[in-house]
Amino acid sequence: MGVASQTESARARTVSLDRDDLELHEDRFFDPDPSIRSVARLLYEETRDLPLICPHGHVEPRMLAENQPFPEPTALIVIPDHYIFRMLYSRGIPLESLGVPSRDGTVVEQDPRKIWQLFAENFYLFRGTPSGVWLAHELHEVFGVRRRLSARTAQAIYDEIAEKLASPEFRPRALFERFNIEVLTTTDAATDTLDHHRAIRESGWKGTVLPAFRPDAVLRIATPAWNAEIEALATLHGSPIAEYEEFIVALEGRRAFFRSMGATSTDHGVVEPHTERLPIAIAEALFQKARIGRATPEDQRRFEAHMLMEMARMSVEDGLVMQIHAGSFRDHNDQVFTRFGMDKGADIPLATEYTRNLRALLNAYGNDPRLMLVLFTLDESTYARELAPLAGHYPALRLGPPWWFHDSPQGMTRFREATTETAGIYNTAGFNDDTRAFCSIPARHDLNRRLDANFLAGLVARHMVDVGDALEMARALAYDLVRETYRLEGVAGRGARGA
Amino acid sequence: MGVASQTESARARTVSLDRDDLELHEDRFFDPDPSIRSVARLLYEETRDLPLICPHGHVEPRMLAENQPFPEPTALIVIPDHYIFRMLYSRGIPLESLGVPSRDGTVVEQDPRKIWQLFAENFYLFRGTPSGVWLAHELHEVFGVRRRLSARTAQAIYDEIAEKLASPEFRPRALFERFNIEVLTTTDAATDTLDHHRAIRESGWKGTVLPAFRPDAVLRIATPAWNAEIEALATLHGSPIAEYEEFIVALEGRRAFFRSMGATSTDHGVVEPHTERLPIAIAEALFQKARIGRATPEDQRRFEAHMLMEMARMSVEDGLVMQIHAGSFRDHNDQVFTRFGMDKGADIPLATEYTRNLRALLNAYGNDPRLMLVLFTLDESTYARELAPLAGHYPALRLGPPWWFHDSPQGMTRFREATTETAGIYNTAGFNDDTRAFCSIPARHDLNRRLDANFLAGLVARHMVDVGDALEMARALAYDLVRETYRLEGVAGRGARGA
Amino acid sequence: MGVASQTESARARTVSLDRDDLELHEDRFFDPDPSIRSVARLLYEETRDLPLICPHGHVEPRMLAENQPFPEPTALIVIPDHYIFRMLYSRGIPLESLGVPSRDGTVVEQDPRKIWQLFAENFYLFRGTPSGVWLAHELHEVFGVRRRLSARTAQAIYDEIAEKLASPEFRPRALFERFNIEVLTTTDAATDTLDHHRAIRESGWKGTVLPAFRPDAVLRIATPAWNAEIEALATLHGSPIAEYEEFIVALEGRRAFFRSMGATSTDHGVVEPHTERLPIAIAEALFQKARIGRATPEDQRRFEAHMLMEMARMSVEDGLVMQIHAGSFRDHNDQVFTRFGMDKGADIPLATEYTRNLRALLNAYGNDPRLMLVLFTLDESTYARELAPLAGHYPALRLGPPWWFHDSPQGMTRFREATTETAGIYNTAGFNDDTRAFCSIPARHDLNRRLDANFLAGLVARHMVDVGDALEMARALAYDLVRETYRLEGVAGRGARGA
Repeated sequence: MGVASQTESARARTVSLDRDDLELHEDRFFDPDPSIRSVARLLYEETRDLPLICPHGHVEPRMLAENQPFPEPTALIVIPDHYIFRMLYSRGIPLESLGVPSRDGTVVEQDPRKIWQLFAENFYLFRGTPSGVWLAHELHEVFGVRRRLSARTAQAIYDEIAEKLASPEFRPRALFERFNIEVLTTTDAATDTLDHHRAIRESGWKGTVLPAFRPDAVLRIATPAWNAEIEALATLHGSPIAEYEEFIVALEGRRAFFRSMGATSTDHGVVEPHTERLPIAIAEALFQKARIGRATPEDQRRFEAHMLMEMARMSVEDGLVMQIHAGSFRDHNDQVFTRFGMDKGADIPLATEYTRNLRALLNAYGNDPRLMLVLFTLDESTYARELAPLAGHYPALRLGPPWWFHDSPQGMTRFREATTETAGIYNTAGFNDDTRAFCSIPARHDLNRRLDANFLAGLVARHMVDVGDALEMARALAYDLVRETYRLEGVAGRGARGA
Repeated sequence: MGVASQTESARARTVSLDRDDLELHEDRFFDPDPSIRSVARLLYEETRDLPLICPHGHVEPRMLAENQPFPEPTALIVIPDHYIFRMLYSRGIPLESLGVPSRDGTVVEQDPRKIWQLFAENFYLFRGTPSGVWLAHELHEVFGVRRRLSARTAQAIYDEIAEKLASPEFRPRALFERFNIEVLTTTDAATDTLDHHRAIRESGWKGTVLPAFRPDAVLRIATPAWNAEIEALATLHGSPIAEYEEFIVALEGRRAFFRSMGATSTDHGVVEPHTERLPIAIAEALFQKARIGRATPEDQRRFEAHMLMEMARMSVEDGLVMQIHAGSFRDHNDQVFTRFGMDKGADIPLATEYTRNLRALLNAYGNDPRLMLVLFTLDESTYARELAPLAGHYPALRLGPPWWFHDSPQGMTRFREATTETAGIYNTAGFNDDTRAFCSIPARHDLNRRLDANFLAGLVARHMVDVGDALEMARALAYDLVRETYRLEGVAGRGARGA
Repeated sequence: MGVASQTESARARTVSLDRDDLELHEDRFFDPDPSIRSVARLLYEETRDLPLICPHGHVEPRMLAENQPFPEPTALIVIPDHYIFRMLYSRGIPLESLGVPSRDGTVVEQDPRKIWQLFAENFYLFRGTPSGVWLAHELHEVFGVRRRLSARTAQAIYDEIAEKLASPEFRPRALFERFNIEVLTTTDAATDTLDHHRAIRESGWKGTVLPAFRPDAVLRIATPAWNAEIEALATLHGSPIAEYEEFIVALEGRRAFFRSMGATSTDHGVVEPHTERLPIAIAEALFQKARIGRATPEDQRRFEAHMLMEMARMSVEDGLVMQIHAGSFRDHNDQVFTRFGMDKGADIPLATEYTRNLRALLNAYGNDPRLMLVLFTLDESTYARELAPLAGHYPALRLGPPWWFHDSPQGMTRFREATTETAGIYNTAGFNDDTRAFCSIPARHDLNRRLDANFLAGLVARHMVDVGDALEMARALAYDLVRETYRLEGVAGRGARGA
């Protein structure tokens, strides 16, 4: 049989497939080479059922505090997920027609079934994307859907999910348990009262949900909201914050409060990861300039660089793991921002420099075993050039997993290929899902465990490591390293060997 | 049989090969893994015979207007192709000995057979390069050559090609038809009269050849030729251009003329894709400064940034698709430029920034459905970091195919791997060959169709998409997307399903 | 048998492995795909036994001049290798406990067995790194060790190596011969007397060991040691160096001396590869400013840019091959530098620009066939963007092999994939090991030959080149190109065909 007729019959087989069946292939995301695939399966089996540790993400603690049923499929899956609606928007579908709430009074679509239909009709846009495969996993594994989402199946699938959401097994806490989440960390402003976290703790429910301290808003001295943030901070602090030193004391106080509520980490979002210690007098002057609303963007840049130094100092003292997420140009699209606000899929990465920018912080604190600093980047060109060499030298440094746009099959592969040869795997921080889409959490961890297994299987197939080593490495990447990096000894442990 | 003896016999088989045979392997460029290769074949079968759409390139319209026979092999294949002679030059072969015409009176080799022989003797330099495989395809498929080019076969192959070129089947229009070109777009200066385009249209020949509006020369206000360009523009415009506003009106007029001649697109070459709207008074001042020959490179940079805004505004109004090719440092080698002029293989890429540079333009026009903006880059580090996030958000934006040095097997693979997970394939613009080497057009499209098929087959083999999806994606990449992006509804369509 | 039970039995087989056995798989580092692997084997067989040419590295010539036995395993393998101790340090193991000599009086561990044990216990950190596989090769092939290094086997392996080191077969010259080194080039300061090189030449030993001229220290006019360097240079020069012109003459004199001692190359380490010719008066002024200790870092930057021009001019005149290693931020960690000095694993790469920076040098000398310039980078984003286009145009330019952090399986693969399509392989300089770890030399060359064979096998499997071409390319990459690039015609030749 020649190539042409083989091709013809393969085409015939394809055409005869019922394209409506939704299946998750057992070997999905693995390299098709048999000697890689067989080892990838073996390694994945070692990690697939380990509990999920979620040390960084954006799930709302209120959801788990109140434990109310999720409203309906569109409000759960489409409207809050900027990965989804940015892609639809990029092909000309107005955000209004997707029900994204406006903040300027613009009327938006209110019929969830209409929005769901539009989403389903355009679901082909997600072919080859992580959103596409996450959603397939979520539909199949969380909601038991067995048909592919399309214009034709949209309403029936909507009904199927809606029915599930009404049942007690689909309340947030029940899903949390079913997802086998061992720890879930949220992201909380410095001025957050952590009332929802308190409610969870006092409810008697056994789920471990921890806050993380993210003080960005009180450090951005050139933003219009800054003075109000300082007032809110002062209220919680219990005394006025008129001077820089009081500001520092207030921050230390909030960190102590977060720690008392279970926090093990802080998080810092900056455009540029510049670090530089300012003389106190300069810091004070910048603070006072900001108090009268006169701080410039350049003032803010210097103040943030100084405050990263202070945050590292406090981490050395109180043991909170420090995370830096650098390099996102937020709200790039003014029209979208004006009408719909932030986190609407219009944040665009920037080239980012680490070697010079982090030098002050690493020189001051990077040799101190009390500091644990986890770095995230959106600039993959820095993986092999700057980040792996830094992490392969400074004891305090670990590399966070591929972030945001790079939390994807190729993105994860590039990360491991570019960092392992210089930093090894033991200077990386394990996985985190970094999501606000609660029901996508299992899909994201599963994708990561498969891709890490596949990467390690490639090392085995090329005889860089043996299978015994690879089994230990797979487990480290899926569980041990994240627990160690985020200092979760006290709160995590179900996945520990023999536990 | 041990590894060593297996190797020995494999070596023996190799040695026994007649190394003079030129063959194009049916599965060339496909991953050797059987589960990828079989799907790649299937997908390639779907697209291999689709018409070629060539929406951006540098073929001379005169060639198709006059339809004269090509002179002889060296003048067709070696002398005009900077991909070829730059590589020979890089290993110490003088451009003079390759017959590249000098502009300073330097005597260059005139014997085409001698040049062809030199090329053939050094053809091993192209091993593993796209030029190498394009030429193999061109010799085999266009000219029916069945021997590999080498010192020994050079003259016989020269004869073979020369004979073909003399026959009517090898005239430009006959080749155009045989190549199955549905649309071919040229690149034309703002001051071009489009006489050759008019001649093609009036000749009664059915081939579709369109102009594209490329006004770079009239925007580069710091170059010595600028004032002459403005004079030429004024002549065509039919009235003097003494002021900035008249300049704008003249450009609008030329665009209308290009549209009347079939143009659907413009093209803009810039070092840096900076965009910024200047107050009219500033634009006018820069224009006047240029009129007296005093504009500086920095003035030009600002003027070009402003004019990109104006070009986008005009595109919103007249519907011409806007292309930006950024990041080439032209004429890096002064000696080569002085002696041989531009486009001599001495253009070198620069690191390029898009996120901040394009913000003004995208904020002003990027949400407007009337704009279609196609971006090209020579800086692959921007694919995943900047370009895919921008294209995965702004409705107006599409990513052009891997350009120039990256129009190659690994280059195409890196492009798809780096952009698909964030932007999908539907925010990309399909392929264009961007060539002045007319006879290499089929080779370039074939290479691209094979590589895109291979990329999609990898997704299938890893169960990211199924074969049915992949078939639709392959067709979109080879035909549908380019037709849609370049707004060719009116002029293209032979490849449409069922057509 | 289902997937699960297959996996179970695969796991059982793994567990039953004696994990203490150290084996080097015959096919290590090759792609597992059978059609790639079989060709990779064939190509590797062509090159595996070729002599090693080592045109750039940091082996101490004294070692080969004195030919004394190596002290003991820890002093040979752990203490001098910053690849090894930086990784241990990065996971919190103090350099003191690894016996790294301090320069500030800090007491460090003196017991080599204790250090070796600590290294062995943490050897798992090198899983998936080149250091890990180099060491496996070195233990197995150089020292005949057949057990994996671990906490349990550490002392026995120490004994095994120590015993070997005491025998005459393990003296430096005996190993040099056993390693089949055809040429070994060291790196020597401009002020080096080359006494060890003289001693080697006069000893009657047949090994070819050449110096390379590295004048960095006498060009860094803002460093505190600079004036002392100039005094040392003057002493060797035999007359005072009070003026810039005398400095130039002294450098020309040292180059002539190095050439008389066999040197064929120079080497230049710069942060930024900036080149710019200064007027003599400016160069003189900078030189005088430095003589009185007032040169600033910016002065040094300009002076170095000018001196790269001068070094290129001298290379054109005297024929020494010029190497530039750019982009390392040296001694990033002040604490480590203060306590332990330089080359302690704290050098971190920087983003590096070549297109604009090298333009002055390439315009002045890049078209001259007398110049051979070899470029090295730590910024892989420049491979396809800047370096391959430059090397694919300028006759004088060759690309050095993947350097330092990138001298690794993935690093080599990325280098070939990113440069071959634009520059071909014939504008690259072959391999160099760039190591101070003498016993790792065979491991490094073997890894490179395997990876280049594997890259070429991928081209064959995808029908980009045929096996006959690939055999010639493999040989060029392993032997011919390095000999040609470093102008070793006179001193190398044992590996030449038929020799």
